[in-house]
Amino acid sequence: MKGKKRIIVIGGSAAGPKAAAKARRLDEEAEIVIIQKAPDLSMASCGYPYYVGGFFDDRNLLICTPTGVVRDPKFYLNAKGIVARTETEAVGIDRKAKTVSVKDLKTGKGESLSYDKLILATGSVPKIPPIPGAGLDGITTLQSMQDADYLRRVRDEKTIKKAVIIGGGLIGIETCEALQLAGIEITVIEMLPQLLTFLDWELAKLVENHVRSKNANVITDNGIAEFLGENGKLVGVKLQNGIELPCELAVVAIGVSPNAKLAKEAGLETGLAGGVIVNEYMQTSDPDIYAAGDCVESLNLITGKKVHAPYGDLANLQGRVAGENAAGGNSATFPGTIQTGICKVFDFTAGSTGLSEKAAQAAGFTDIETVINASPDKPGFMTGLLLVTKLVVERKTGRILGAQCVGPGDVSKQLATWAMAIKGKLTVDDMINADLPYAPPFSLAIDHSIAAAHIMQNKLKGRMKGISCSEVKKKLDGGATPFILDARGPDEYEQIRIGVGERLIPIGALRNRLNELPGDKGAEIICYCKISLRGYEAARVLEGRGWTNVKVMEGGIMAWPFPREK
Amino acid sequence: MKGKKRIIVIGGSAAGPKAAAKARRLDEEAEIVIIQKAPDLSMASCGYPYYVGGFFDDRNLLICTPTGVVRDPKFYLNAKGIVARTETEAVGIDRKAKTVSVKDLKTGKGESLSYDKLILATGSVPKIPPIPGAGLDGITTLQSMQDADYLRRVRDEKTIKKAVIIGGGLIGIETCEALQLAGIEITVIEMLPQLLTFLDWELAKLVENHVRSKNANVITDNGIAEFLGENGKLVGVKLQNGIELPCELAVVAIGVSPNAKLAKEAGLETGLAGGVIVNEYMQTSDPDIYAAGDCVESLNLITGKKVHAPYGDLANLQGRVAGENAAGGNSATFPGTIQTGICKVFDFTAGSTGLSEKAAQAAGFTDIETVINASPDKPGFMTGLLLVTKLVVERKTGRILGAQCVGPGDVSKQLATWAMAIKGKLTVDDMINADLPYAPPFSLAIDHSIAAAHIMQNKLKGRMKGISCSEVKKKLDGGATPFILDARGPDEYEQIRIGVGERLIPIGALRNRLNELPGDKGAEIICYCKISLRGYEAARVLEGRGWTNVKVMEGGIMAWPFPREK
Repeated sequence: MKGKKRIIVIGGSAAGPKAAAKARRLDEEAEIVIIQKAPDLSMASCGYPYYVGGFFDDRNLLICTPTGVVRDPKFYLNAKGIVARTETEAVGIDRKAKTVSVKDLKTGKGESLSYDKLILATGSVPKIPPIPGAGLDGITTLQSMQDADYLRRVRDEKTIKKAVIIGGGLIGIETCEALQLAGIEITVIEMLPQLLTFLDWELAKLVENHVRSKNANVITDNGIAEFLGENGKLVGVKLQNGIELPCELAVVAIGVSPNAKLAKEAGLETGLAGGVIVNEYMQTSDPDIYAAGDCVESLNLITGKKVHAPYGDLANLQGRVAGENAAGGNSATFPGTIQTGICKVFDFTAGSTGLSEKAAQAAGFTDIETVINASPDKPGFMTGLLLVTKLVVERKTGRILGAQCVGPGDVSKQLATWAMAIKGKLTVDDMINADLPYAPPFSLAIDHSIAAAHIMQNKLKGRMKGISCSEVKKKLDGGATPFILDARGPDEYEQIRIGVGERLIPIGALRNRLNELPGDKGAEIICYCKISLRGYEAARVLEGRGWTNVKVMEGGIMAWPFPREK
Repeated sequence: MKGKKRIIVIGGSAAGPKAAAKARRLDEEAEIVIIQKAPDLSMASCGYPYYVGGFFDDRNLLICTPTGVVRDPKFYLNAKGIVARTETEAVGIDRKAKTVSVKDLKTGKGESLSYDKLILATGSVPKIPPIPGAGLDGITTLQSMQDADYLRRVRDEKTIKKAVIIGGGLIGIETCEALQLAGIEITVIEMLPQLLTFLDWELAKLVENHVRSKNANVITDNGIAEFLGENGKLVGVKLQNGIELPCELAVVAIGVSPNAKLAKEAGLETGLAGGVIVNEYMQTSDPDIYAAGDCVESLNLITGKKVHAPYGDLANLQGRVAGENAAGGNSATFPGTIQTGICKVFDFTAGSTGLSEKAAQAAGFTDIETVINASPDKPGFMTGLLLVTKLVVERKTGRILGAQCVGPGDVSKQLATWAMAIKGKLTVDDMINADLPYAPPFSLAIDHSIAAAHIMQNKLKGRMKGISCSEVKKKLDGGATPFILDARGPDEYEQIRIGVGERLIPIGALRNRLNELPGDKGAEIICYCKISLRGYEAARVLEGRGWTNVKVMEGGIMAWPFPREK
């Protein structure tokens, strides 16, 4: 008897269970089986760092429904009518016979399961540096529930004093915070010149400064050469520049690769980033096999290129599409990603949507403009907190290509705003008059995002010549001697100042002290203040009075990522 | 000598100072004068309720720059090169002579000032009910700095025990919270059947329930008939139904009207809502006169109709446009508004962007679909808080017309997301795979907004028949006897339940207890759970087993606005 469709899902973390549940809702009759290698199912893996860091103590919260039911095979069977086989490994796919070979890891018994539709949700595997000592005790990743259990024990047992995090990406930074909160002395080691490579250098440096302010050490521009051990246990790491750091724990977080082994062995098409190639229906090169989540490559909607985008939200969205199409034929689509990402970094949040300046350049965009805006997220009287945003647009069209935002303020809302702007293919002109929710507990009268668009418009219209803090620093380091004007008040200057030979002329006194400015109206003048709003006003005054080479240091002191005089 | 342009700005609150500052940045030479009737300038008037409520104590914070400089005439002169004349009233405009007659309110002296360009930013005036007793002591609005000072004294002196707020709109509710925090017994009186008319009734009712839970009284469907006084002092109010409420203070917050008196007297065109008519350049019917802020009417970008939209953020955006165009000729535009609004209501936030269902119907949209989604804003293990969203779309095109959101969760981000979706003219299909910032400290893996779009898609595709809590209540009150299925667990049922004759069948037991369902496969069945995700799953199970009239009560118990059994 034909009748019942049989859908097999390989992978039980995020995309797999989502696909299975969606398929069930569309087809109450189908047989749906999840094959899961790990003992747990549907783990909230993005929550691991917060479990390790002690934001909550009940491990079950990572694998429970919101009402406290553990998502185990019994739950799947009763609540969803789905057979979930945990500790069971899928070892091969016979596409011709339409079967999957599975192995019960508890009994070692093998079995062949037939399918009508197969969904691959095999996830990703952490990269491990190919260096000596990688097998020592005390080296882990934070990829699996077992890893989370291990690091939580580290926290609770309080025996480990020093740890290194290898890799300053999203998971590395989240783990850094978690272990630092556990009282462990942490060093983050990053091979590249900056943390969080989805940010441009200047914003990443602000995050790095914040991490350091929390007593975590950061080493950039340096990779790891060797794990050092004694009696099989990690006792330190040796860096590429020869430095040795003693430590009892190393967390490797240098990224993940698509786990496409099964797919490749079955002859399915994979891409340059190593992931399974799927069309917009999440269908692989075999029409009966779908794939979703960390194992696939996704289309970057801005560059048009396929990328590996291992984000938990995309895994769920893709799983939903794969499940719908596997159950009912191709109808749902997943168009692609703009690679929106966010992470908590102690009291900061850092995130990005669309392209950074670096990524835009790498993607071949040559005609771009950027701007940095620094401001509180809401009024000072409602205890506003700082946000620093870098906006990247295509100059000719004004199209928004990307936005990054860091700071203690409400970064999440800023990124959601920009992500939707990019989704809607909006331009700077569109954002100028965006109609966002305003009340003092939630935002400034002109929201931080809109203000960024305003500054960008001023630049695009030639009303403001911006210069980044990095460019100013480079200029000064190179021996240039621009006239540097700090437009703040004397009290502010006494509290905080950069100390690069700047002249303090408060904006309120500027028009009466023009004689202190260079007599040469073509001399280079760089204006700033705390966030460079008064800096911009000062520049407009000077331009109005005939100076022709006046620049505004974008973001002002709040965006200055280098050491200050005070 | 011609040369210097003279720009006069009438009004010094929000739009006026913004216009003046923008004009100055574009024209360092122009003479720019602000005429301001009140003693203060550039007041953060949206912050008044928080000053009254004691969120901060320093009144100067309302009129200071972020660095603590009071925005007084001296500040305007020195920092901006703008002459600000406070306590000066503009009493007439001679458009032919291009002069404004002003009167110094301190000396009584009159004067005529000539202009090249005039910017009207005369704001709005609070509506006062035309009833007896309106002149008694103890009756106020919260519109001016003087009002804020008065109510703050009320808070600090602690002599007033009972107050009424007349009007349950945004300012009424904010004032309710402020005075309740001051320890005053508050009653909010609203003539309409609900608070916050930018919300549909169901969401407004959830807000009302929250206000009541904070020990503030709410009376709806009842207006005020008379203020009752003794010796010139307010001692109570009499409602239209005859009830008398003793009180020593009444705050009138029944809305504001555009202050277009000067404009009308000068023969400028005004609209049906009473505001000055402007084009997209914020230019009035006289090309040399611009207008911005609460005194104008704005284009609603969804309905194409002119509306009075007195929002602080729009005043600033419009002021910027008016200032730019007055200084340099028409180049900047303000296209219109989608009327995004938000307010804090004790531990709730409530807001709306675009059209409510009610507003969409009033605007003539006949083919609309709505959905209510309830969920936490982030995972339970990160202490997620409830959000309830109502989404309104055009059925045929899927175009998003509006979204409302209330609850203790992060409403502000939800509204920003939807506001940008509407700005980009996005559809439900676009929102299905929105790429929003996800990490557990900030959102669910599938953001609340995206989940709302998913449910909407399920409805539009006919996979879910939704029914609102109100419709269910109406049905039951009308004597109907649908089979009502609560799909939660027994523990949850013991803690909270509606108590309308529902049958508890946990989703995990449903497939084995189908015999408890009506034998008639056409019988009406209404499913729900806490937020109606399991309710939806139950409906899919029943539909898969042949029942044909199965509905899901949207938002579940969390959206039920009526009294519960427990």
